[in-house]
Amino acid sequence: MTSNNDPPSGGLLGTLDGDPAVDQAVGDGALLAAMLDTEVALARAAAAAGLVKPGAAAAVAAAAAGLTVTPGELGRLAADSGSPVIPLVRMLEDAVSAGADHAVHIGATSQDIVDTALMLLAHRALGPLLAHLSRAADAAGLLAATHRDTPMLARTLGQPAAPSTFGLRAAGWLAGLNGATSRLAGVRRTTLAIQLGGAAGTRAGFGGVGGDVAGALAADLGLTDPGGPWATERSRIHRLAAELGTAVSSCAKVAADVVHMSQAEVGEAAEGSPGSSSAMPHKRNPIRSVLVLAAAHRAPALVATVLGAGVHEQERAIGSWHAEWQPLRELIRLAGGAAARTADVLDDLLVDPAAMRRNLDAACPAALSENLVALLRPVLGRKGAQGAVHQALDAAPLGGPDFVAALRSDPRVAEAMTMADLEAELDPAHQTGDAGRLVDRLLSRRAMPDGGGFEEE
Amino acid sequence: MTSNNDPPSGGLLGTLDGDPAVDQAVGDGALLAAMLDTEVALARAAAAAGLVKPGAAAAVAAAAAGLTVTPGELGRLAADSGSPVIPLVRMLEDAVSAGADHAVHIGATSQDIVDTALMLLAHRALGPLLAHLSRAADAAGLLAATHRDTPMLARTLGQPAAPSTFGLRAAGWLAGLNGATSRLAGVRRTTLAIQLGGAAGTRAGFGGVGGDVAGALAADLGLTDPGGPWATERSRIHRLAAELGTAVSSCAKVAADVVHMSQAEVGEAAEGSPGSSSAMPHKRNPIRSVLVLAAAHRAPALVATVLGAGVHEQERAIGSWHAEWQPLRELIRLAGGAAARTADVLDDLLVDPAAMRRNLDAACPAALSENLVALLRPVLGRKGAQGAVHQALDAAPLGGPDFVAALRSDPRVAEAMTMADLEAELDPAHQTGDAGRLVDRLLSRRAMPDGGGFEEE
Amino acid sequence: MTSNNDPPSGGLLGTLDGDPAVDQAVGDGALLAAMLDTEVALARAAAAAGLVKPGAAAAVAAAAAGLTVTPGELGRLAADSGSPVIPLVRMLEDAVSAGADHAVHIGATSQDIVDTALMLLAHRALGPLLAHLSRAADAAGLLAATHRDTPMLARTLGQPAAPSTFGLRAAGWLAGLNGATSRLAGVRRTTLAIQLGGAAGTRAGFGGVGGDVAGALAADLGLTDPGGPWATERSRIHRLAAELGTAVSSCAKVAADVVHMSQAEVGEAAEGSPGSSSAMPHKRNPIRSVLVLAAAHRAPALVATVLGAGVHEQERAIGSWHAEWQPLRELIRLAGGAAARTADVLDDLLVDPAAMRRNLDAACPAALSENLVALLRPVLGRKGAQGAVHQALDAAPLGGPDFVAALRSDPRVAEAMTMADLEAELDPAHQTGDAGRLVDRLLSRRAMPDGGGFEEE
Amino acid sequence: MTSNNDPPSGGLLGTLDGDPAVDQAVGDGALLAAMLDTEVALARAAAAAGLVKPGAAAAVAAAAAGLTVTPGELGRLAADSGSPVIPLVRMLEDAVSAGADHAVHIGATSQDIVDTALMLLAHRALGPLLAHLSRAADAAGLLAATHRDTPMLARTLGQPAAPSTFGLRAAGWLAGLNGATSRLAGVRRTTLAIQLGGAAGTRAGFGGVGGDVAGALAADLGLTDPGGPWATERSRIHRLAAELGTAVSSCAKVAADVVHMSQAEVGEAAEGSPGSSSAMPHKRNPIRSVLVLAAAHRAPALVATVLGAGVHEQERAIGSWHAEWQPLRELIRLAGGAAARTADVLDDLLVDPAAMRRNLDAACPAALSENLVALLRPVLGRKGAQGAVHQALDAAPLGGPDFVAALRSDPRVAEAMTMADLEAELDPAHQTGDAGRLVDRLLSRRAMPDGGGFEEE
Repeated sequence: MTSNNDPPSGGLLGTLDGDPAVDQAVGDGALLAAMLDTEVALARAAAAAGLVKPGAAAAVAAAAAGLTVTPGELGRLAADSGSPVIPLVRMLEDAVSAGADHAVHIGATSQDIVDTALMLLAHRALGPLLAHLSRAADAAGLLAATHRDTPMLARTLGQPAAPSTFGLRAAGWLAGLNGATSRLAGVRRTTLAIQLGGAAGTRAGFGGVGGDVAGALAADLGLTDPGGPWATERSRIHRLAAELGTAVSSCAKVAADVVHMSQAEVGEAAEGSPGSSSAMPHKRNPIRSVLVLAAAHRAPALVATVLGAGVHEQERAIGSWHAEWQPLRELIRLAGGAAARTADVLDDLLVDPAAMRRNLDAACPAALSENLVALLRPVLGRKGAQGAVHQALDAAPLGGPDFVAALRSDPRVAEAMTMADLEAELDPAHQTGDAGRLVDRLLSRRAMPDGGGFEEE
Repeated sequence: MTSNNDPPSGGLLGTLDGDPAVDQAVGDGALLAAMLDTEVALARAAAAAGLVKPGAAAAVAAAAAGLTVTPGELGRLAADSGSPVIPLVRMLEDAVSAGADHAVHIGATSQDIVDTALMLLAHRALGPLLAHLSRAADAAGLLAATHRDTPMLARTLGQPAAPSTFGLRAAGWLAGLNGATSRLAGVRRTTLAIQLGGAAGTRAGFGGVGGDVAGALAADLGLTDPGGPWATERSRIHRLAAELGTAVSSCAKVAADVVHMSQAEVGEAAEGSPGSSSAMPHKRNPIRSVLVLAAAHRAPALVATVLGAGVHEQERAIGSWHAEWQPLRELIRLAGGAAARTADVLDDLLVDPAAMRRNLDAACPAALSENLVALLRPVLGRKGAQGAVHQALDAAPLGGPDFVAALRSDPRVAEAMTMADLEAELDPAHQTGDAGRLVDRLLSRRAMPDGGGFEEE
Repeated sequence: MTSNNDPPSGGLLGTLDGDPAVDQAVGDGALLAAMLDTEVALARAAAAAGLVKPGAAAAVAAAAAGLTVTPGELGRLAADSGSPVIPLVRMLEDAVSAGADHAVHIGATSQDIVDTALMLLAHRALGPLLAHLSRAADAAGLLAATHRDTPMLARTLGQPAAPSTFGLRAAGWLAGLNGATSRLAGVRRTTLAIQLGGAAGTRAGFGGVGGDVAGALAADLGLTDPGGPWATERSRIHRLAAELGTAVSSCAKVAADVVHMSQAEVGEAAEGSPGSSSAMPHKRNPIRSVLVLAAAHRAPALVATVLGAGVHEQERAIGSWHAEWQPLRELIRLAGGAAARTADVLDDLLVDPAAMRRNLDAACPAALSENLVALLRPVLGRKGAQGAVHQALDAAPLGGPDFVAALRSDPRVAEAMTMADLEAELDPAHQTGDAGRLVDRLLSRRAMPDGGGFEEE
Repeated sequence: MTSNNDPPSGGLLGTLDGDPAVDQAVGDGALLAAMLDTEVALARAAAAAGLVKPGAAAAVAAAAAGLTVTPGELGRLAADSGSPVIPLVRMLEDAVSAGADHAVHIGATSQDIVDTALMLLAHRALGPLLAHLSRAADAAGLLAATHRDTPMLARTLGQPAAPSTFGLRAAGWLAGLNGATSRLAGVRRTTLAIQLGGAAGTRAGFGGVGGDVAGALAADLGLTDPGGPWATERSRIHRLAAELGTAVSSCAKVAADVVHMSQAEVGEAAEGSPGSSSAMPHKRNPIRSVLVLAAAHRAPALVATVLGAGVHEQERAIGSWHAEWQPLRELIRLAGGAAARTADVLDDLLVDPAAMRRNLDAACPAALSENLVALLRPVLGRKGAQGAVHQALDAAPLGGPDFVAALRSDPRVAEAMTMADLEAELDPAHQTGDAGRLVDRLLSRRAMPDGGGFEEE
């Protein structure tokens, strides 16, 4: 079989959202190969179940191996029936040696082949996709470990909030990427299943041994045997799509933070390999992060498309089945591209701890307010503590001895804490709470064989 | 606390998409109660961790119990800060007895309370929701068992396909409903977790015992302890939303089939409690199924909203966090309404086996073509068998002796099969393949304690 | 320039959702051509405004005409910067004759070229797309005219409602298709505009004559001059996307009705060129309608993607701009394919008036209830009329003299209407209200030069 | 009639996304009122067309005025039939004076009333909504005028790009808001139409004068007369939804920019009335902008829901009609809230021109690269100019005399431009291109009666 060298991501814009390895694995050539692999495995499974002779199955395999149709040619032939399987089966029938054509497409219907091939395609494409995601998770983990104690200003609703560490932020990236990896690996292992029902889902064409054929087919292709047809019960597709969507989100969380940290006025990090501009020679755009954010604008609607096409009428859907094919492949492509770019961004991220410290210091003492309230709360109560911090910030917004003095103007505070005690509290690098321990915990989960059981939590 | 008796589903149109029990559980009163329960449990957890005295925690509980604010009043106060927690905490501070106000909202930030309360709300609302889904699954199972061997015409792409049974269709409904029940129950058990991070996610306000407080909080509320904050890692929300969306699809599959079977010209089934019309006194509309289909038009976009709001910037999202709240509640409402209506539809579905048989017979012998091809295939090969069936259908489209004769016009067939052999093959009720066995298998999985492990497949 | 012969719709599945002419017009080759046309027109416009010498503009045109880059090659070069314009401009610079490179990409930025090229692409692709839509509208109009008075059972919520005509249903299809055609033509005429702002949207690179350059550029390309840059104001894109989405809906309305009418038990219409099955030689699937319905499952999410990417930050979006490109092209493709298939379906639709009459008669007298209530209402009041019809239906559900007698059992009715009067009312073919006049009106609007001003209503 | 004082936005979270005036106008009380207004106007229109006596129409009006049902009660009664119209009509029948009940709901069906009432609701709610949008546009215009010449750094892809003005950015906000206002006003004026078709869309219940009744009904309610029923042709709904979605985008563009400018490290602007925090007494969150961004996460999916429910089967949709109701109201609510908040944000926005200048200066001379390339291009060609700027930036990234000297190191430049010439070019405040003129043009369009014809471009 001649595979197509121009996957759907090829051409002018596909390099901006996809990833070569994943694109190749979901491309037209790969889909055609998956359909042929399914037909061949079906013939072998029928032979194993005694429905056809082993020689006939071998003949089907030989015919499939010898086919030279391109995806484009098959596509043109598919237009009339709405199914690429119909012309493909005809070709196999024509190509198979005499006496073996009864083994072609035995007991199956188009949906069996398309559904199984798409699951096989997903299984194969998740290989490189998971490798990218895992690489991204590892890179996030390395940043988290390296910067476990690098002080950084936490921002909430876009505003300075409180001291934290860059390690904790990176560990948060890790948590998202690790969870996505772990759950998608689980989907690959257990959710992706063969489809085998025949014309009406009764397996009537298998003479009572349909269950055996299904088991052999699943084993041959490395997919799950679902125990029965799922032609109109699409939750497997939904779970795959939903986890792909969440994986893109996990990548885009990193991208959004990198874009923010890369702003000129913030300057806390930068992509190691920025992009250029057609108009401005000085530009160093965080282009890979921008492209990940673009993917995150597109993925949720593809999930919604697949989910919205979830009602499959009667024994085969009237439109919603066909509506799944391209969005599912596109979703895999986008997730693959997002994962690869995120891994790249994290692998060569330039981090500037001095800038982080500068921005953190500039935000203090205001950004210490939560910590100061916690400190004063046992002495002044919650409202009293908040009021005291407010007053001190009004009196000395830039901090320093006047700020400490203002805090101590309440005699209860003065009694409870010395000037030195309070000053020690005002070093933001010492006010990062459990950040280090939380980093350690997330790193240890990443190190577990199953990603720390994120799948189950 | 005075609960609000007018949940968001109340009023003019909410009765058409929601369900009273689920609506009540996600209504404003329930959300306010969940926020207060969270604040109270937090104070108790802080006491357990030694941060405050037990009496102070009790004082918080007493203050919460005594609050008389309505959701509407709190909502008006929330408008300025964008958070209902801020005015609620102020009220608790004002209401708490002297010396205990340091125990109010200790170490927490608004997002801790809102996220935990929403998870608690979901946990509670999944109670009645799962009961409806489970009832629907049981009703589908009963139909599948009752009609295990009721012959019915399978339709694919809206056209007559092949003989099947109504039992197998109902077992397909069961599979979807059972899987949704099982997976949503799993989400409830393990995915719904408390949130506890404090202002910046470092748990700085807990003086090093944040982990203990989190564990006690989770245990108190019956939610999972996630091991760390997830303020910007929203996959828990995504999984909940995705499974709710799939649950609605599973319901709508039933509804679409019931609407089709209820058509006057098909007449194979009807809702037991149809709706009326304002203009046509004769109308008996399958209104509950129609309303389930309406829900299925709305749910995927809500899933996409939650997923599209999945990028939570820095240490607290700039809009995407707020964007989750109402869509998540609305999604629970829609799933609750769809599940309840589907259970009702299935509970009193009127099934007409005679009409099923009539439609099946009218579609034969054409609808037997897959079976006949399977029969003739060993003798004539695949193409030969398809050709012979085509010729016979052309010669005698209504079947009968002429059809059999046409099939036997090929001497190889005549040699292999007698007239009587072939006639026996033409009873569609005997051409339903593995339908019965597939029904049995799906029924047996439903009977397992965990729904047959649908969660894992 | 060597154009790419493999548009994005090519390959294995693209023939099932696209249309060859529209696919070609939005394909990679077409997009590359549009970018080059934009660069050339920009150089000419700069020459017209006196910024560069005419010879330099001609040199740019010659360089563009001589480029042999394929979309795939350019795509690979685009990956680093996230923009295909950057390598393309570099190629033009290299290719342009000595002394003319200052005319390349003058005053522009990447977004100017990409946005203008996409608008040009849309303008061109709307040519064949509108031709398909218009052909579909004409075919619907012909059906409406032919079957102006063909009685048919109207169904509401899937149930028999009242007598209508097939002409009125087809005129409804016409209304949707005509409106979509008319509004999309309006979008093409006035909404599709050039983009020209330069690096920051100030047109600083044009030395004060940016407005003149923009005007000349728009005139050259046949697009609207928007009067200023719209780099971060994307309502033009939204309007295009929304109308494309509505056009798909208008097609899918036809498809859904054809699928319903094609059901074996209904039998009122059938596609003239149905599809076949891989498993069932007898199948005649309404495959083109099914594929239109599949497109309708996908289009709304693409509209939502474009709309959801509507917030373009600062002076150029951080991801949402890139997110528009592929969904917009895909939406045009889907609309093109849906329009072409709908035109094909309507062009050779097989209509069976006898089956329509049979189904209508079978639904009467119940389906006459609205008409009978209207008849009896002046005599009995609304409730009385509804009650009388109910009683008559209970007494004689199949109609006939007993039904008439039951209606006349109320002396007020008997006094007001003779047996013959009432019997005349019971011919459903005479109970189609204003159907004929409504058909005439919709046909007359189609005949107007501007589609009857649907755009404005 | 007792109106409901608790609109759907009421309660705990509705104040965070809605606006009191718009919420009130789309609330349950308003919808019930619109349904009653429609029934009353229908009776009057029937009287005008001679179908009923004027007294009967007056009796319907009196009955409607006297009804005391609450939305909640009607909702509970609606659950069985799936339509609030059915119980409402029954109440009117019961309440109307003797002999007038034939005038109740005459010739109409539920969909006529619901569709007309929803259009009336939208018409009314667009009143305050357009006032908010218009106020926002005016406030943006005032900022644009005030800051017409305030230099500011333009950012593209989040990075420093080139000099611009805050006036031009604000004028871009104005363009979006003005266009949304103008187009939504157009939709209100011409797209919102009555629905009148009767049971099957034939107007059979009007005895041939349905067209007159429709005209009178439209005139009475201030809606458009569409010339025929549109029960299954929903493009009016789509256009309304799409423009609402775009309006939210236009608001969110402002919000995103304000959030960015409010960052501590940027500091160019701030909300005049920021929000507080439950944990951090120092916080000043741009909460209104955050809430607008939250709305922008939700609106596109609601547009997609309405569009995805665009296929209305046969003569009344099987689920997709019911699916429009709540999303359409919710979309109006979200747009209303976003418009009101955006107007508030713009009305009291604190602008810091000194910070803008500081950030601009810090980005120069790099951010002058486009301008310098334009300057040097005639002398050095495009590539030469880009190279020279690159070299100068490498030599003297902070600018100053060394930077100028580096630029003049090429003798052609030195010949063409003096040191003083070049230094004059390096003042970013003088390098804002056509910014001022573009501001003027956008302001002048806002001043036109129709918003400058944005609707038509």
